[in-house]
Amino acid sequence: MPTIKEGFRHLEHRYLFQETARRAAAYRAAHPGAALIPLGIGDVTRPLAPAVIQALHEAAEDLSSPDRFVGYGPEQGHLWLREAIVRGDYEARGIRVEPDEIFVNDGAKSDLGNISDLFSGDNRVGITDPVYPVYLDTNIIDSRQVHFIPCTEGNGFTGDIPDEPLDLVYLCYPNNPTGAVITREKLAAWVRYALENDALILYDSAYEAFIRDPELPHSIYEIEGARNCALEFRSFSKTAGFTGVRCGYTVVPKELTARGQDGERINLNWMWDRRQGCKFNGASYLSQRAALALYTEEGRAQARESVQAYLDTAMLIRQGLERAGLKAFGGENAPYVWAKTPDGMDSWAFFDFLLREAEVIVTPGSGFGRNGEGWFRLTSFTDRERTAEAMDRIQHCLHGH
Amino acid sequence: MPTIKEGFRHLEHRYLFQETARRAAAYRAAHPGAALIPLGIGDVTRPLAPAVIQALHEAAEDLSSPDRFVGYGPEQGHLWLREAIVRGDYEARGIRVEPDEIFVNDGAKSDLGNISDLFSGDNRVGITDPVYPVYLDTNIIDSRQVHFIPCTEGNGFTGDIPDEPLDLVYLCYPNNPTGAVITREKLAAWVRYALENDALILYDSAYEAFIRDPELPHSIYEIEGARNCALEFRSFSKTAGFTGVRCGYTVVPKELTARGQDGERINLNWMWDRRQGCKFNGASYLSQRAALALYTEEGRAQARESVQAYLDTAMLIRQGLERAGLKAFGGENAPYVWAKTPDGMDSWAFFDFLLREAEVIVTPGSGFGRNGEGWFRLTSFTDRERTAEAMDRIQHCLHGH
Repeated sequence: MPTIKEGFRHLEHRYLFQETARRAAAYRAAHPGAALIPLGIGDVTRPLAPAVIQALHEAAEDLSSPDRFVGYGPEQGHLWLREAIVRGDYEARGIRVEPDEIFVNDGAKSDLGNISDLFSGDNRVGITDPVYPVYLDTNIIDSRQVHFIPCTEGNGFTGDIPDEPLDLVYLCYPNNPTGAVITREKLAAWVRYALENDALILYDSAYEAFIRDPELPHSIYEIEGARNCALEFRSFSKTAGFTGVRCGYTVVPKELTARGQDGERINLNWMWDRRQGCKFNGASYLSQRAALALYTEEGRAQARESVQAYLDTAMLIRQGLERAGLKAFGGENAPYVWAKTPDGMDSWAFFDFLLREAEVIVTPGSGFGRNGEGWFRLTSFTDRERTAEAMDRIQHCLHGH
Repeated sequence: MPTIKEGFRHLEHRYLFQETARRAAAYRAAHPGAALIPLGIGDVTRPLAPAVIQALHEAAEDLSSPDRFVGYGPEQGHLWLREAIVRGDYEARGIRVEPDEIFVNDGAKSDLGNISDLFSGDNRVGITDPVYPVYLDTNIIDSRQVHFIPCTEGNGFTGDIPDEPLDLVYLCYPNNPTGAVITREKLAAWVRYALENDALILYDSAYEAFIRDPELPHSIYEIEGARNCALEFRSFSKTAGFTGVRCGYTVVPKELTARGQDGERINLNWMWDRRQGCKFNGASYLSQRAALALYTEEGRAQARESVQAYLDTAMLIRQGLERAGLKAFGGENAPYVWAKTPDGMDSWAFFDFLLREAEVIVTPGSGFGRNGEGWFRLTSFTDRERTAEAMDRIQHCLHGH
């Protein structure tokens, strides 16, 4: 009889966003006609850039033509897209990345989960807390020892460099859920730690397009030595509204290695290539053509405009919360605002309070880890009008509280 | 320092199709202007059905509209697609499957690989030989004990029921690479084996649309008891030319369980749902809309016409090989033809012979496993003219041989 991977039994049975959805649905059922404003889920709402739509129509026409039909592409992604990524996202910033170090995928979540496939169960894994649940859950499934790195107001939500050696460290900046960014100096300290301790950094920069401060790093490869200690995960989901289109990519520099049982160092670019060749058949041709359109001048400008609109909403949220007397962070170079609950309320109690009193749905910070307790997250992926209305309601109910 | 999953080191370093491509490229370099005919790779060549193209254009328009924009869908797939699958592929054959047992994916290869995530390393795995390399490689990566089930001319390439208990058994009918089909009686014997031995069958029916014989089963759930012992993997890749579009689905009946360390039975539908929720963000909205179009009357008829064209080519190949004096199987309810090399030549020697003497690229059977030695595979995914030309060349060079 088949036996399961035991780690699954150590997962929380219900995913965070399933629980918030359940409570919102229960409220709606009890209050028909309630005009709830959702500021909880990180899904985009603005239509795709016109250049992307045009690319999608052209790609569909290709698939209708006997001469231009495209079937399987390389598992690593079409070369034309990988070359555009290298030029647009790396060479343009003076960073050396080769096309065969780029692995195009169907969204960053897949690779952030599947990367776990490469490693044995013995690795000690550093995970910031609070954190995007995927990093934690995939390592629980694989029964690895997890070391939490507290990200608090005190350390600017960027985590203190650990005293002890770790094997794998997940970092995400601009951060989900806190909206915090990391300075070049702090990121360099993490790279130094990784090089000194022979650790591998899994760097999630899915939100880099939200960075407006020219001093902040967009890629970990802006830091010297990072090619020897870091993978980078990128996504078009928030950058260009691709949450439904599904496309992202992972960078695996050819310098990276990890140890086999006999001590031999095995190349990670080769391993990831083999993993993808074995368990993935490439991202959709349509999604790859859509992504390519983002590297044209007009596509880039249109996507940037959309990101700016979300940043404007983020600023409305942050200022609105501050006017309501709450302590709020993020939202300047990130789509997320992270705020402290009033009067020491716990996260779920405040979630319920806002649902009831303001009819606004947020995400309880405790769902992202122990250090999220007493905090909540708001996302900027709504329009200005609804956001302003939500802020008015929150101010009103807190001042009445 | 990170340590790797040791199983990767036991994989063959070079994937089968990389090696055939390398030899073909070397031949091309040495013979510029050679008009090679590729009958090796299983990639479709015919354009998508007009109904699918129309759905892709409509889906692109949705993504350009503020009111109709679609972001993240459920990780399991949009309900409208899962309901269409239930009605079109199962209810229409009198089979009960529920929408929450359907998991839409970005192609069957992903799930056939990722399903390995659910199971511990201790399971004894039955794999037919010759076989689609993904089943074997994913289990090598996870260091499971593999028991090969020979599929030979003697047992109609359907494998003898094992004498010993196995935990997981991969079956694929119509078969890749042999083009063999399985009768209802033989499939029932496999289901009986699984029920008696508490084994789980991983049933790959990616090629079911090629079945023309009304007596043959399209789904393992046509067999009584299969809901208690089998998952089913389906793909739109060959059925509807979706190799570039990327969409398929997996069926995980709610009856299925596997054992935890303490002996408790854990529900596999729950586990797979949790796995997908953790490591997958749903298939592209465009691909799902494209798949939905296949469940309309016109979409179904157009896709069927395309499959028929490939079946016609398959028959040309089988008859052509027989005229050349070779023993050939498959190609009647499958896109693959499986043939014996002449004069006991080994598979790679015959691959090189055909490349040199006929300028036709096939796939050496030994690349699919030990029992493929002395065989080769041809695919019907080419047009009639080139196929007829390839058969002429093979007949000519074999008679001259």
